[in-house]
Amino acid sequence: MLVAHGSRRKESNDEVVVLTSKLGGLCAEQFSVVHYGFLELADTLIPAGISRCVDDGATAITVLPYFLNSGRHVVEDIPNVINECRALHPDIAITIAPHVGASQGIFDVLIASASTQI
Amino acid sequence: MLVAHGSRRKESNDEVVVLTSKLGGLCAEQFSVVHYGFLELADTLIPAGISRCVDDGATAITVLPYFLNSGRHVVEDIPNVINECRALHPDIAITIAPHVGASQGIFDVLIASASTQI
Repeated sequence: MLVAHGSRRKESNDEVVVLTSKLGGLCAEQFSVVHYGFLELADTLIPAGISRCVDDGATAITVLPYFLNSGRHVVEDIPNVINECRALHPDIAITIAPHVGASQGIFDVLIASASTQI
Repeated sequence: MLVAHGSRRKESNDEVVVLTSKLGGLCAEQFSVVHYGFLELADTLIPAGISRCVDDGATAITVLPYFLNSGRHVVEDIPNVINECRALHPDIAITIAPHVGASQGIFDVLIASASTQI
């Protein structure tokens, strides 16, 4: 499950919905179900996203924080909400993956993006 | 120049500083100078970051928005600040690269991050 912050700007939330759909197609071999959940400000919130995964048959869920920096949302808020979700779904293994900005691969993305302009 | 939002949380800003330093080492062939600039809330702000690039001899600057979603900051605020910078440095070609979240490579990063947990 991709977890994004959520925005008051609908277009920004729509991007996450589209991204999730595309991601689901690209990683169907590793992940049979891919949904999204927002931390705040937008539907679907994280607990509802987890429930969607469970309803679709997930028995183990990887939560992927769609964040670049390890701010309070990554360090505290998402883990706290996920702990609440674990209490609601004690039979489901829910793990939290490193946030996007922690990935070594982000450097390739940065260089590729910048290089399109030179 | 990597442009990040800036945070009240010092650790988050420090991450951008470290990331920029590492990025500079990784793309030294394509970019002779790599600095950072924050949109708000933290030193160094974008105009000061641009000035640092110019002081270090840059004659063309690629601005890379370190943002995942194309919100108001990416669509309006950064372009507005960059336009002000262009007026201050009329002899420097300043272009804005696509924000990180717009990169096709982001999917590989997402799948790799999620896969570390399964």
